Amino acid sequence: MKENIEEELKVAKAATVGAKLLSNELKRDLLYKIAAELKGNVENILHENKKDLERMDAADSRYDRLLLTEQRIIALADSVQAIADLDDPANKLLSSKLLDNGLLVEKKTVPLGVVGVIYESRPNVTVDVAALCLRSGNVCLLRGGSDAWFTNNVLVELLRSVYSKHAVNPDMLQLLPTERKHVTELLTATKFVDIIIPRGSQSLIDFVRENAKVPVIETGAGVCHTYVDKHADLPKAAKIVANAKISRPSVCNALDTVLVDQAIAESFLPILIELFHEQQVRIYADDSSYEILTMLQYPYLEKASPEDFGREFLSLQCSIKLVDTLDDALIHIANYSSKHSECIISEDAEKIAIFMEAVDAAAVYANASTRFTDGGEFGLGAEIGISTQKLHARGPFALEKLVTEKWYVTGNGQIR
Amino acid sequence: MKENIEEELKVAKAATVGAKLLSNELKRDLLYKIAAELKGNVENILHENKKDLERMDAADSRYDRLLLTEQRIIALADSVQAIADLDDPANKLLSSKLLDNGLLVEKKTVPLGVVGVIYESRPNVTVDVAALCLRSGNVCLLRGGSDAWFTNNVLVELLRSVYSKHAVNPDMLQLLPTERKHVTELLTATKFVDIIIPRGSQSLIDFVRENAKVPVIETGAGVCHTYVDKHADLPKAAKIVANAKISRPSVCNALDTVLVDQAIAESFLPILIELFHEQQVRIYADDSSYEILTMLQYPYLEKASPEDFGREFLSLQCSIKLVDTLDDALIHIANYSSKHSECIISEDAEKIAIFMEAVDAAAVYANASTRFTDGGEFGLGAEIGISTQKLHARGPFALEKLVTEKWYVTGNGQIR
Repeated sequence: MKENIEEELKVAKAATVGAKLLSNELKRDLLYKIAAELKGNVENILHENKKDLERMDAADSRYDRLLLTEQRIIALADSVQAIADLDDPANKLLSSKLLDNGLLVEKKTVPLGVVGVIYESRPNVTVDVAALCLRSGNVCLLRGGSDAWFTNNVLVELLRSVYSKHAVNPDMLQLLPTERKHVTELLTATKFVDIIIPRGSQSLIDFVRENAKVPVIETGAGVCHTYVDKHADLPKAAKIVANAKISRPSVCNALDTVLVDQAIAESFLPILIELFHEQQVRIYADDSSYEILTMLQYPYLEKASPEDFGREFLSLQCSIKLVDTLDDALIHIANYSSKHSECIISEDAEKIAIFMEAVDAAAVYANASTRFTDGGEFGLGAEIGISTQKLHARGPFALEKLVTEKWYVTGNGQIR
Repeated sequence: MKENIEEELKVAKAATVGAKLLSNELKRDLLYKIAAELKGNVENILHENKKDLERMDAADSRYDRLLLTEQRIIALADSVQAIADLDDPANKLLSSKLLDNGLLVEKKTVPLGVVGVIYESRPNVTVDVAALCLRSGNVCLLRGGSDAWFTNNVLVELLRSVYSKHAVNPDMLQLLPTERKHVTELLTATKFVDIIIPRGSQSLIDFVRENAKVPVIETGAGVCHTYVDKHADLPKAAKIVANAKISRPSVCNALDTVLVDQAIAESFLPILIELFHEQQVRIYADDSSYEILTMLQYPYLEKASPEDFGREFLSLQCSIKLVDTLDDALIHIANYSSKHSECIISEDAEKIAIFMEAVDAAAVYANASTRFTDGGEFGLGAEIGISTQKLHARGPFALEKLVTEKWYVTGNGQIR
């Protein structure tokens, strides 16, 4: 076992200058070559992947995420090729001013430097993140789950060999050892690492937030509300709510709580539970909605406890609360939202406008499923994550956020 | 003494919705009215300022910063008026896409929410920050130094009375009590505060960085290097270096270390010390430059100890080191820079280009004094600070960074 990862961190930092100077064309070409190498090494990759799979119980929920197939490897290669074709976000001129004193003051985008990504057992993250970092001229430090060690290692070595073959420093990409102490080392290496992006479960993100000294872009949990106003089209509302809950309950943009205007609850809930029933969606209901749902004999019903509001269910469960006014809905959301995605369903334009301005979240919706909060759906290309913070990146973010700004000041002897 | 500031934090958060909805015109008008009130209340303000001054030794270096005069109050009012005339950074449409499924996906700028600013005894910060927050629709929590309590209080009450008179929630602006425990409370109030900006000494910034759970924009120290290449115009180089050191040594963009190419050291140092001599600039010299400077009989000379490199002097002192190559200069800067402002002096375009790309700093210079790193000099209007971090804001930043992004998704029943 390694004592520490200082050497890895040092060579990563040292690789930043070379990474920054790679031309747009070379970066694109390297990505095409990587895509080809992935397709040409399917057997080798599957062989290493098998070693990881053999260590995991096939009933484990992570098994399918870890599993690679020929088809999945080809999809990985295609994704690398798509990233190759994206615009280089670095070296863009943001502003340029010639001052009266003759100084030329320019602001340009430049790569962040060393990007550390901490994730779990999805090998596609390994390739995607490495490709996005290369595309933007960043050095990439990967810390994947120990479950995926052999898979990640063969993938990273394949990429590094492409770098070496083309006289590019392979230390631009490194897979870090998986021991926890090295994670803490990475999170506190302010001298060597410019940014950390955690991708994975809430507990991983919490650990990173608690321990990081390096700046973090949080890709956080989604406690998502949908408010059904009394001026909603009820069948449409039920379809949107059901989709937000059922289409993929394990993801962060899935619905957690339905807020229903008291005035339409008795007409709305019967339509909703018709859509919930088949999927056996479990409802944690506040007192007023519990009464209605009991009368309707909905079988998957429990009384909500206080913790069921503000809870991210990540499964076929949700909480329901009746509210008297739009204001009550806004107050509830302000108290319990994780500021990810929030929705109003209404045909009243004024109420929609108030809701969308007043709610403080990365994405606010009118009359559509919150499940759309996604870089691909929003047309951003390869998504890095969905930021729930307010600085630098908010909501779905992609390649263009892997850069920072830098001021270039060119003079001829100017003094102040 | 207060038990805690939870009530202040809560009402601040509650004020964000109203603050966000203020129109551009109203925000501008309020700022004009504030400017007028400042000019109309000079005596009252001076009276309160006197209470603070009486508690401070006139020999204290903070005395002059704390001191208000009629002229300074008028300058404050003029600065508020200038902020009134700046563009509103909020409610700008950043992108708009109509997706194939009919969803309208828009990204707009919105105020950050609650902005906390922690600073020391400069009353101009009180007014400037309050005005910048109002201009951008943010709620503002001020925590100034206890030395300036009476002054800050009269200024804040004056602004709040303008808000009240125009039916705007005065809780958009609050002056917090000065006890240390409340600072910690503010720094950890992630539920109520969206961003903290520390303005002041390094020890203040360090305290904030160590203790904050709320996101911070660091306005950090400047350990600034100027590298004099062997292809420099030496008299020009000496003038730039002297200006960077002498014109205002107490600020973050002042020079700390001169790196001199060995090949021209014997011709350059005599020209430089001619400019340093009158101001009695103390030089901490590495062995090779010490030898030359001793021969030149420079009187304010000491041998550098290792800590003199990477040290922010903030006074008429600097360190000097001779280097063999551009690479040596780059390595030294990479090791010791605080990533604020770094300069090369050379007539060799290729070396300049390498230096400016390779150096990782908020501002890189060719042939000009690093003293220009400043929002006003760069033409940004009222500066909030100079960020030494890479996310969200880098280098001098102003009003336009007091916003975040928000996605607005408008549909008509779309599901995924």
